[in-house]
Amino acid sequence: MLDGVYVRPQLEINLTRILENYLSFAAAKARSETDMAAVVKDDAYGLGDQEVAKILYERGGCRTFFVAHGFEGQCVRAVAPQADIYVLQGPGHEDLECFRRGNLIPVIASLPQLRFWYQEMPNQQKPALQIETGLNRLGLRPEEIASLSSEERDKFGLILSHLACADEPEHPMNQKQLNAFNQLRLNFPRAKFSLAASDGFLLGADYQFDIVRLGAVLYGLNPVPNPSVVSKNVVQVKAPILQIADVKPGDCVGYGAEHVVKEPGKIAIVSIGYADGIFRSFFPRGKVWLEGEGQVFTAPLAGRVSMDNLICDVSHIPDDILARNQYVSLISDSYTADDFGRDAGTIGYEVISAIGHGVRYVKSYVGNTD
Amino acid sequence: MLDGVYVRPQLEINLTRILENYLSFAAAKARSETDMAAVVKDDAYGLGDQEVAKILYERGGCRTFFVAHGFEGQCVRAVAPQADIYVLQGPGHEDLECFRRGNLIPVIASLPQLRFWYQEMPNQQKPALQIETGLNRLGLRPEEIASLSSEERDKFGLILSHLACADEPEHPMNQKQLNAFNQLRLNFPRAKFSLAASDGFLLGADYQFDIVRLGAVLYGLNPVPNPSVVSKNVVQVKAPILQIADVKPGDCVGYGAEHVVKEPGKIAIVSIGYADGIFRSFFPRGKVWLEGEGQVFTAPLAGRVSMDNLICDVSHIPDDILARNQYVSLISDSYTADDFGRDAGTIGYEVISAIGHGVRYVKSYVGNTD
Repeated sequence: MLDGVYVRPQLEINLTRILENYLSFAAAKARSETDMAAVVKDDAYGLGDQEVAKILYERGGCRTFFVAHGFEGQCVRAVAPQADIYVLQGPGHEDLECFRRGNLIPVIASLPQLRFWYQEMPNQQKPALQIETGLNRLGLRPEEIASLSSEERDKFGLILSHLACADEPEHPMNQKQLNAFNQLRLNFPRAKFSLAASDGFLLGADYQFDIVRLGAVLYGLNPVPNPSVVSKNVVQVKAPILQIADVKPGDCVGYGAEHVVKEPGKIAIVSIGYADGIFRSFFPRGKVWLEGEGQVFTAPLAGRVSMDNLICDVSHIPDDILARNQYVSLISDSYTADDFGRDAGTIGYEVISAIGHGVRYVKSYVGNTD
Repeated sequence: MLDGVYVRPQLEINLTRILENYLSFAAAKARSETDMAAVVKDDAYGLGDQEVAKILYERGGCRTFFVAHGFEGQCVRAVAPQADIYVLQGPGHEDLECFRRGNLIPVIASLPQLRFWYQEMPNQQKPALQIETGLNRLGLRPEEIASLSSEERDKFGLILSHLACADEPEHPMNQKQLNAFNQLRLNFPRAKFSLAASDGFLLGADYQFDIVRLGAVLYGLNPVPNPSVVSKNVVQVKAPILQIADVKPGDCVGYGAEHVVKEPGKIAIVSIGYADGIFRSFFPRGKVWLEGEGQVFTAPLAGRVSMDNLICDVSHIPDDILARNQYVSLISDSYTADDFGRDAGTIGYEVISAIGHGVRYVKSYVGNTD
């Protein structure tokens, strides 16, 4: 087999690990009756909502899912026939048919949306209600809650809110939002309650209520420093080395001639770029990885990321190691989406989502139940 | 019709404008025999490679296309039966069948790829060769060119290279690369030549050679300041306002409680986020737009972009204007992908590509030939 003649980047998604993450967080809940829901919005952060929902439903016993949009919910319904599927953006004209076909539960965010739901009534589900406790994003404000009759309030099956600073356990906002939630929920004596997503879960029993919405930690993200339960990486991204070339002092590398070579050396041109979700902001701090003879070698980016390629400095890597590596590694167990995100000036969530949207990957699943 | 009950972002792609951009740049070429090729790699920067290639082929007379990967070329072949389709990343094991079925032309980037092509020979096309002139990305280096026999050199139909700094017309690298290209091309007396993409085209006749590869300017991007021919915007991105809410001094908005309200005011929660390619780095400089009574109102982002939503400050916009706008505008003729890119700390190319990969848009085409 000839070297240098693979061209497409690879994305491997480990469903077994996603299941393990789900089960290990579920095992850490404070009360057995708390329902651990899976957040599979945005095509499960780009990793495949049907694949993820199916394994959690069939092998994790998960019976509650959250998506953002109605059409996402309809996709999930196909693999989770008996689950409760909540739609966080609520119902819209575009998605009504999805609510009907998927028997989806709307999360109502505003009074006009509430009126719209009861006007259209695409199914008989009791709606959920999002209430505002300090994030100042979607949700009914206290004065709007006060405007509802007690009969209207009793029609909601679930009351939920969302924390702004749960990834900073010491932030005073957490306790403040918990207090607000505990006060506002008195308005809904017949409903269930949900405040915590992944980070909020780790804040402890007081935050867990009836439903915890696990998203980030299913997908190998650990936004909270030193969490008590660790989410294992589920994504491997590799890309083929198309070419190795020598460079000499004064040579410029990449667009804008921004990287200038100081010592004689070698560069590797790798077949992955920002069209594949590798943010341009990954330069200059980014790096890729090669293996050989029990060692791991880091190759820092040399020059800007372009649409289809990135270039890295491999001057310090022996030729025989280079010859043996047809691929470099971009995301792996030892350099996760969180690490990538930090080096690209963003968060792991955005990294996973952007890579997951890439259409040029040779995509494979580990642990598929099909 | 009730307000606040649309939930999905909208992406409108104007194929008529893409055609106009193609024709206006083609009309500006220095020599009539220069072939104006269309770069439709990465699904035409996410905008739909078949839609774009079809209108350029049928109504623009375009007969030369460039893609990055073989499987992209095969898609384009379906709508451009008689075109030359070049594959910039070259042939790989994964895509050989696409070269065969699509009768695609490989752009060879390295000696191993060249050997691989002649070993596999999936079709009878004369390969193109990429040569390195200063970008230090893909391409044969001078010493590798020297290692080819003259018989081998004569087998290439096209010799191409790529400029590093063409978006900075005064950059000395441009002349340096032109000189290198003119010298190296003497090795290929029987080939055609291509050096310029969109920006390089604007550097003038000396850079245009036999084939110009128009990418960015087809899609409304104008990376060169004050270009002699202007590319018209082809993308409209809008997103529905889900909710308008009051805020008071001291309120925090969004994740990390990073935006703190100073004056009593109003925020709008908009149904679009980084899952839709709206980079997190769009905050804090980003803004969205509303219209009313002949005026255009700017609403700056208030707080971090989240996965499904962004929040903007609409305090200064009259209530009746807000009531009439069910959508805000994110990319439009007056705030293009270039503007968005600048405010997000990147370039329009990455913006278009990320938005184009979004799967939650209600997507529509203007000028579709179907």
